[in-house]
Amino acid sequence: MYGFAERMAPLNGSAIREIFKLLGDKSIISFAGGNPSEASFPSEELAEISAQLLREQGGRILQYGATEGWAPLRESVAQVVAERSIRSTPERTLILTGSSQGIELFTKSLVNPGDVILCEDPTFLGAIQTFRSYQAKLVGVPMEADGVDLAALEEAMKTHKPTFFYTIPTFQNPTGCTMSMEKRRRVVELAQRYDTLILEDDPYGGVRYEGKTLPAIASFDAADRVMHLISFSKTISPGLRVGAAIGHPDLLRKMTINKQGADTHTSNLSQAVVDAYIRSGQYFEHVQAILPPYRAQLAAMLKGLESFPAGTVYTRPEGGLFVWIELPEQIDAQAMMDEAVQRKVAYVPGTFFYPDGGHKNTLRLNFSASTPEQIERGMAILKQLIEEKL
Amino acid sequence: MYGFAERMAPLNGSAIREIFKLLGDKSIISFAGGNPSEASFPSEELAEISAQLLREQGGRILQYGATEGWAPLRESVAQVVAERSIRSTPERTLILTGSSQGIELFTKSLVNPGDVILCEDPTFLGAIQTFRSYQAKLVGVPMEADGVDLAALEEAMKTHKPTFFYTIPTFQNPTGCTMSMEKRRRVVELAQRYDTLILEDDPYGGVRYEGKTLPAIASFDAADRVMHLISFSKTISPGLRVGAAIGHPDLLRKMTINKQGADTHTSNLSQAVVDAYIRSGQYFEHVQAILPPYRAQLAAMLKGLESFPAGTVYTRPEGGLFVWIELPEQIDAQAMMDEAVQRKVAYVPGTFFYPDGGHKNTLRLNFSASTPEQIERGMAILKQLIEEKL
Repeated sequence: MYGFAERMAPLNGSAIREIFKLLGDKSIISFAGGNPSEASFPSEELAEISAQLLREQGGRILQYGATEGWAPLRESVAQVVAERSIRSTPERTLILTGSSQGIELFTKSLVNPGDVILCEDPTFLGAIQTFRSYQAKLVGVPMEADGVDLAALEEAMKTHKPTFFYTIPTFQNPTGCTMSMEKRRRVVELAQRYDTLILEDDPYGGVRYEGKTLPAIASFDAADRVMHLISFSKTISPGLRVGAAIGHPDLLRKMTINKQGADTHTSNLSQAVVDAYIRSGQYFEHVQAILPPYRAQLAAMLKGLESFPAGTVYTRPEGGLFVWIELPEQIDAQAMMDEAVQRKVAYVPGTFFYPDGGHKNTLRLNFSASTPEQIERGMAILKQLIEEKL
Repeated sequence: MYGFAERMAPLNGSAIREIFKLLGDKSIISFAGGNPSEASFPSEELAEISAQLLREQGGRILQYGATEGWAPLRESVAQVVAERSIRSTPERTLILTGSSQGIELFTKSLVNPGDVILCEDPTFLGAIQTFRSYQAKLVGVPMEADGVDLAALEEAMKTHKPTFFYTIPTFQNPTGCTMSMEKRRRVVELAQRYDTLILEDDPYGGVRYEGKTLPAIASFDAADRVMHLISFSKTISPGLRVGAAIGHPDLLRKMTINKQGADTHTSNLSQAVVDAYIRSGQYFEHVQAILPPYRAQLAAMLKGLESFPAGTVYTRPEGGLFVWIELPEQIDAQAMMDEAVQRKVAYVPGTFFYPDGGHKNTLRLNFSASTPEQIERGMAILKQLIEEKL
């Protein structure tokens, strides 16, 4: 009945939405989402903070705010990105309604229909959808265990002259892989040599279970070619919808113009709560406190994978929320979904994370939203199902 | 240094941003913004509500939510639009991060570059910016005291075959005019006859100082051609960023896909607070309580205008936040801005609200953010300045 814009044509996403609807069914062990554990939320602390903020600064919080963000939060974000070796200032910081909004605003500011965006192959599904909504041509660059394949990246930059390269270097979604220090440095050099930009999406960086924090790609960026995105969704709460973009003010200015039309500004209440939580010092304690349970959940999932059939390959992430599985070639993880759901386990078939599809034998498993017991049970069910298919 | 997308070219908006920066200077009497009065914010009530919600439902509020919105709020919005004679259901309701987001999502879902959007001439500046960001061709339709000029609207629909007609029928921004009942009915008939859609933006509808509430354009819409936007910015708080779109589920589905990429969902905390405030009954009491001060502020502004020079024409709005002035033809309100600011009064030159500019002798005055005393003083300064120019 309605005639929609051409940009909407590739945006069905119905298959994946059907899967996400399953998240509401409490009888299903869901490895499908990317939800943090509800047990990790600091509800009581945020209740106190929000009441105090509204009582003491209600006039300011409830009024219109600057599109660039709540001024105190633009400052305190610096504390959070310092551990990634990024020096941010308020002028280089735009507060976002979740870090995904940064993907949207950056793309809208820079991409004409038909322009090429390079991305990791596989990559975050939401980013693929956003890039498509601006009619970009997506070119995937293969992943290796230590991050993107650099030779392939260079070749793709040379061939396609992309507007930018989109990367999730730390605990990548969906693979869980982390880009090595050396590759981080080299990616910046390549961007410089081939005159392109980098969108560094780092929503998981705060959630590391082992190993040392690596400097962000942005920390090697002397030529202001990197826009760095952070999120508070995994470290405080996704329901508050607060993230930030850190980069050159000229890029942020265009993103700010687009944000003006998008939502004028992010909820002041959400922003002020996040700011107060950081400034109180509770934020950094809280992040330390949520790691042990996640570490145990990841361990339970990796243990379950040990007894999967020969020919199964999987990642061992040092942080984040996801493990990535390649099953023996004859298994079609998408076709297997219905049976898995009948047996009360859900996951996301890996094919959805590839701009060009294929890779039917892959799947993504989330461990943050299930208890170790649920993970043990769910992994046993999956193992059984896969064995039946061999 | 950076190459931006073509869509960004017409989006400078620097003149207007310079004006809005003045809002931070407390020594200036600002008639420029659209801020509600801070005295009107129910800070204490919302402090209690937010603390209680986070204590009792923290797990749900702080978790990811549905893109469509907080389920209880999708229900309770029905109470708010009922007074505009709209029957809404959760399935016909999408919660927005402020009603402006509805303009963005509707445009992105429907408009290809070069498509025509009809709008009132003058109209909301933010909407003009958003329409331009999707490279629409904007065609303005003249305003009359009782709303858009219907003959001109029909002619424009016939000639341009627009994707939709954007209208703010109640206490229009910037003119303050309200579309008559008869015109509301006719606009729907025209949309039906010329096979186009209507985006009905109604952020001010709740703030009426005299006269009777009129049914929304959407209430006459048997053929599902109208998307209705509401806002809680003027009735509770703009800082929370909560609005809603009410319309056909097929349209909302595409807007929801675009919202998924835009911000995943609106802050659950903001949504839950607005919902609880409506359900407690406090919302409706609160709206009644904020009207008398606004009515007094409007009266002060209209009184100031009575002594403006002959040849000044202005609107007498029944609600909303703005009065619209046409000065004698030889006055250039844009050129006069610098002097006005030197004398500590700010406003928005009317030319910015016209897609094609011109109309240099017009200006928009806001009365909601100033006390009657400030308004009296500011209007005397403006009168003096204008008289000096004659």
